[in-house]
Amino acid sequence: MNYPSRLIEEAVSEISRLPGIGKKTALRLALHLLKREEEQTRSLSEALINMRTKTSYCEKCHNIADDRLCNICSNPRRDNSIICVVVDTRDVLAIESTNQYKGLYHVLGGIISPLEGIGPSDLQIDSLIKRIEHPEDAEPVKEIILALSPTMEGDTTAFYLQKKLKPTGVKMSTIARGIPIGGDLEYADEITLGRSIVSRVAYD
Amino acid sequence: MNYPSRLIEEAVSEISRLPGIGKKTALRLALHLLKREEEQTRSLSEALINMRTKTSYCEKCHNIADDRLCNICSNPRRDNSIICVVVDTRDVLAIESTNQYKGLYHVLGGIISPLEGIGPSDLQIDSLIKRIEHPEDAEPVKEIILALSPTMEGDTTAFYLQKKLKPTGVKMSTIARGIPIGGDLEYADEITLGRSIVSRVAYD
Repeated sequence: MNYPSRLIEEAVSEISRLPGIGKKTALRLALHLLKREEEQTRSLSEALINMRTKTSYCEKCHNIADDRLCNICSNPRRDNSIICVVVDTRDVLAIESTNQYKGLYHVLGGIISPLEGIGPSDLQIDSLIKRIEHPEDAEPVKEIILALSPTMEGDTTAFYLQKKLKPTGVKMSTIARGIPIGGDLEYADEITLGRSIVSRVAYD
Repeated sequence: MNYPSRLIEEAVSEISRLPGIGKKTALRLALHLLKREEEQTRSLSEALINMRTKTSYCEKCHNIADDRLCNICSNPRRDNSIICVVVDTRDVLAIESTNQYKGLYHVLGGIISPLEGIGPSDLQIDSLIKRIEHPEDAEPVKEIILALSPTMEGDTTAFYLQKKLKPTGVKMSTIARGIPIGGDLEYADEITLGRSIVSRVAYD
């Protein structure tokens, strides 16, 4: 496309490097910013730079953090004896928003995927074993919950972790698979429906 | 949502101020930038700031420009005697990409919309009349093409412009309405189909 301005073209090119944003959307966003106060573009730019240069990763769970420890690991009211293993920060946010979990997390930073060339050594697995074998907190780790997606990569990673963590003797579990709340039996796939029968829950 | 980092929260909040981007997409974009080289975030931020602070509007057609005149108005090979009136820069880009038009443009900067409180005085209409009555170029303006969307607002704006430009005596036209190339007659609405019969084109 023949942009009216070299600066617009550069901005469109940078914006469209973001995932899921094509040239047309990038142009729409650029023209939007041009119409708004200069202040909005300034604060957007600064927020991006600050985020990128000043955030780090929690030394304990590898979640994103402003300090040495993230605000979950540094919260004295969280249960140190349970660790929930997730792929990335978005999973932590999703689980946190349920308000059902009061333990700690361990962010792997990815998932085993031979196709994308991601192996176990690219993930934060050694530090997970270290947390179990040499806990920093007074309390030992009693349970590891694997909260990975039920995809090929997720299952591979879960299988690898089970094998790798077995020698530590820690209790391991995985999040329940089953019919989603509000889901219709008729539209559930057979594997999910089958799993939901095998893992049925007794009434109290 | 309980973000793991204040800086992430600020970035998400700024990104989600952009049109069509919600909190979830904003978080996905922020986490993407965190995973990439710092350089990418830096060049994105700089491109946005440069675009916002250094681009201006063409003194003649009000299109976005890096200099006093945009690269269409300053191109000596364009036809100065035709002006195509459009709403914004995106329309200029759309028409330019057809390679069918060699005249100049006039960017109104909006469309008459009583609902949104946009009246004729908010648009670049006076400067259009000035371009017709006192042309800067040696050649007088021979034709004005209105390229506005066939919506209520577009039709209102076109009607207003026709009335307003009538005293100048300039020839006026509008882009053709009809069945899109590849469009199926069966699925065309009656108004479009009717207009395509009224404005039928004779074979050479």
